[in-house]
Amino acid sequence: MINFQTSPNQYRHWKLKVDGPVATLSMDVQEDQTLADGYKLKLNSYDLGVDIELADAIQRLRFEQPQVRVVVLTSLKPRIFCAGANIYMLGTSSHAFKVNFCKFTNETRCAIEDDSHHSGRRYVAALNGTASGGGYELAIACDEIYLVDDGNSAVSLPEVPLLGVLPGTGGLTRLVDKRKIRRDRADVFSTLAEGLKGKRAKEWGLIDGYFPTSKFEESVRTRVDELVKEASPLTALTGINLTPLTFEAADDSRHYKYVKLQLNREGRYADLTLIGPEPNLPTDANEIQRLGDSYWPLRAYRELDDALLHLRVNEPEIGLVCLRTKGESANVLAVDQALSSNRDYWLVREIVLNMARVLRRLELTAKSFFTFVEPGSCFAGNLLELVLAADRSYMLNDPDSPVELVVSDLNKGALPMSNGLTRLQSRFLSEPERVDKIADQDGPFDAEAAEEAGLVTFAPDDLDWEDEIRVAIEERTSLSPDALTGMEASLRFAGPETMDTKIYGRLTAWQNWIFQRPNAVGEHGALTNYGKPTQAQFDYKRT
Amino acid sequence: MINFQTSPNQYRHWKLKVDGPVATLSMDVQEDQTLADGYKLKLNSYDLGVDIELADAIQRLRFEQPQVRVVVLTSLKPRIFCAGANIYMLGTSSHAFKVNFCKFTNETRCAIEDDSHHSGRRYVAALNGTASGGGYELAIACDEIYLVDDGNSAVSLPEVPLLGVLPGTGGLTRLVDKRKIRRDRADVFSTLAEGLKGKRAKEWGLIDGYFPTSKFEESVRTRVDELVKEASPLTALTGINLTPLTFEAADDSRHYKYVKLQLNREGRYADLTLIGPEPNLPTDANEIQRLGDSYWPLRAYRELDDALLHLRVNEPEIGLVCLRTKGESANVLAVDQALSSNRDYWLVREIVLNMARVLRRLELTAKSFFTFVEPGSCFAGNLLELVLAADRSYMLNDPDSPVELVVSDLNKGALPMSNGLTRLQSRFLSEPERVDKIADQDGPFDAEAAEEAGLVTFAPDDLDWEDEIRVAIEERTSLSPDALTGMEASLRFAGPETMDTKIYGRLTAWQNWIFQRPNAVGEHGALTNYGKPTQAQFDYKRT
Repeated sequence: MINFQTSPNQYRHWKLKVDGPVATLSMDVQEDQTLADGYKLKLNSYDLGVDIELADAIQRLRFEQPQVRVVVLTSLKPRIFCAGANIYMLGTSSHAFKVNFCKFTNETRCAIEDDSHHSGRRYVAALNGTASGGGYELAIACDEIYLVDDGNSAVSLPEVPLLGVLPGTGGLTRLVDKRKIRRDRADVFSTLAEGLKGKRAKEWGLIDGYFPTSKFEESVRTRVDELVKEASPLTALTGINLTPLTFEAADDSRHYKYVKLQLNREGRYADLTLIGPEPNLPTDANEIQRLGDSYWPLRAYRELDDALLHLRVNEPEIGLVCLRTKGESANVLAVDQALSSNRDYWLVREIVLNMARVLRRLELTAKSFFTFVEPGSCFAGNLLELVLAADRSYMLNDPDSPVELVVSDLNKGALPMSNGLTRLQSRFLSEPERVDKIADQDGPFDAEAAEEAGLVTFAPDDLDWEDEIRVAIEERTSLSPDALTGMEASLRFAGPETMDTKIYGRLTAWQNWIFQRPNAVGEHGALTNYGKPTQAQFDYKRT
Repeated sequence: MINFQTSPNQYRHWKLKVDGPVATLSMDVQEDQTLADGYKLKLNSYDLGVDIELADAIQRLRFEQPQVRVVVLTSLKPRIFCAGANIYMLGTSSHAFKVNFCKFTNETRCAIEDDSHHSGRRYVAALNGTASGGGYELAIACDEIYLVDDGNSAVSLPEVPLLGVLPGTGGLTRLVDKRKIRRDRADVFSTLAEGLKGKRAKEWGLIDGYFPTSKFEESVRTRVDELVKEASPLTALTGINLTPLTFEAADDSRHYKYVKLQLNREGRYADLTLIGPEPNLPTDANEIQRLGDSYWPLRAYRELDDALLHLRVNEPEIGLVCLRTKGESANVLAVDQALSSNRDYWLVREIVLNMARVLRRLELTAKSFFTFVEPGSCFAGNLLELVLAADRSYMLNDPDSPVELVVSDLNKGALPMSNGLTRLQSRFLSEPERVDKIADQDGPFDAEAAEEAGLVTFAPDDLDWEDEIRVAIEERTSLSPDALTGMEASLRFAGPETMDTKIYGRLTAWQNWIFQRPNAVGEHGALTNYGKPTQAQFDYKRT
């Protein structure tokens, strides 16, 4: 079982050093500390275990070290920054694991950009040695890239020429869409195993600068100091601690404080219930800070995040997640109100940004999601997003057991999807005028109003409810899981495309395709034969 | 060998009837007239042969019947409009063939929308019976969809529930991005094998209207008459004939009039040389009309189109196409000038739109393209697009044998890429100010100026030229063809996304992935077992 929880004192591959406004994250991968057997993590290459630590560090910096303005990513290994995802790990992994590994590493890199974009923390890749493959992909997720000019170190994407796969952790997309490298140069660079060194790499826009070895540290430091000065002035912010999430686990369940996960393995679905907030939570920023990570919107969404990752990697046969909530709408709305009115306070901003990331993680999960709105539920405000994020939603229409949906300010833009739109905007692309009308509704929607407004897919009455849900679950879990993955990836993200949706929808789909092709993973494939005395042999038919 | 040329008197599956401003294209697929053995085209299901006729009909209407304002697509079979791509054909096809088949059918549907969008011809799908799968995908490529309300006929996308694959001929994308169906309804519809009938289909936005059997023809006719009236008034336009393209073929070559294709099968590349126009071509619309389809920009690009399709389907092992031109830049510029100054004349508009489609077909081809700018070449105006469309371009820098690139008005927007940008805009996403500067350049760019301007990738001198080209070709053709396909699909279309790029980049990549999965094409896969007494058995791991 893969565990996604860690903390700095458990890190094996990264050193996190914080010095006032500057944090330095140094990669120092321990060859033998792998997540699975059969490979060694040489040359700062990584497996999922290494990336779980990186994701944790980025998340922790946001909550625990809010005064940090610049994060420097570098390496403690001489002459090598990072050699990318470990090839032998990829070569010995199942297709499903490769896909999940790439998705998580993509989310980690998008989290860097989310921090940079929304919280203004600047990320500097200080490449004290060669950054190849995933190493360079990590660098281009940063705001600025500086490479040592030692006559040897280079940046490179050798996946196509050496491995017969893609730089699929955002690499190709970020080349042309983020750094806007000319496409013919991107073509040359992506087929050049040895990559490019300082001068040409700078000319082509692949890095932002290069410095000789003797001046590297000093020059990076100078640039970092400039970035600190450009950033908003340092205030005496105090972070909160992200304490470990605890849960009671049984073979078919995992019960966190606010998230209750119940597996029905035979039926291939899971029931995931979110418990709403307690009443009378603080309305004041200082009190919220005192609650720290026990504050409902932080704890509940961290638990949801962990549950989603657990389902993805440890429960691959679960194809459908049935989302429910339990609690009082009024309590959810009170939390949303507190978040809205304190939105400029750093901790509240981070809490809301984290909620947005978790909801995006849900939509990027290769499982179906159905939401069931039943008596005792509290689909209000931020939890209403679960109705809108689901592939379908069912709401009980029974006057004797009324249920409701309620909007809040948080449905108006604080929790954007990967495509940059709100879930209401994505839902009503054909009737944009509905968006504001719904968002401004005063008071709850009952089942009929919700159906009429288009907020739920179906609103069966109590006579049909049990049967309709049972059949919907049975039908869904009987379908081809691959076809569902492709279908959901196509239907969930209508409207505009962003770098994120390009990475998850386009680049990832091509990479997944290639990850199955005999030219990569067959007996004579390039990935299979990497590092062996045998050479790859291709079927040269172009498809 | 698959031949993409046909004409109405050769059609076996479609009847084309033109009555003044209205053309009716009726599908009447002949079961036994298949392109390959092993399946029968029952219930108006189609194979590539059926779609080649449809593509030809749409193309021909634009040139031969310019007075047509509305095209009605319907069926001559009772109770069935079209059952989509033939499942047994898909089940028995190689992966490469499936992929190429889907790409061509996608291009045909995009050609319908291109005609509608740019030439104002309205397409009406008159569904006199059930439209399922590719049948409904053909319908949603049309502007309006009307379904007979006979208590039985439905629209449906049964690919996911019945076949374990996607409605990959634009279906999923057009549902949410063109018709803007709410995503939860799209989810329900795409998993509902039997689809939806008139009333609910209309409610959900899947069709534009439904009429009882007794009034179906009349009601469609009424709507068609309205559309004719809304269209630009009928003028006495006379079409031109698209005569068959002739070529001399040998085992390793195909020589059309303006396009010379030479295969180097051992080296896995092709040399494709476009011969530029003759001098003194007409500058006047009437003279252009008299030349008809022998006019260079029409004939040369039709030949290029045919050569590309031939390479795709009949020469799968050719991985690289080396593009060259031969002729006088001045003659190309004169043609561009004639096209620009007569751009409002219907035939000239159609000629330019066809050029744009052919260039897009090139960029959607799963082969690498290198352009070589050598002495005797004429990369000016519309042919300069070949330099910009290529994955890389090499230009000889030899003062003794000067070569040039020249811009014309046609580089400024008449030949857009699938992403909606000009090739200059796509090239200079990081320096948009370069676009106008280059487009407004008076006079040619020599090799140094072209390299400086960023128009070519490399400009080797004559000492290096032969070696550099040889090595570039050898290196490219040694790489994994699958990795190149994924890489090129990611690098060619930076910047904004359109419905077209979503269909080719996102939906197609997912479909290609699924087309390889055991759950679709394995021994127990849904596609393999369709129509057999055995049932599909899935590996339910979600990936």
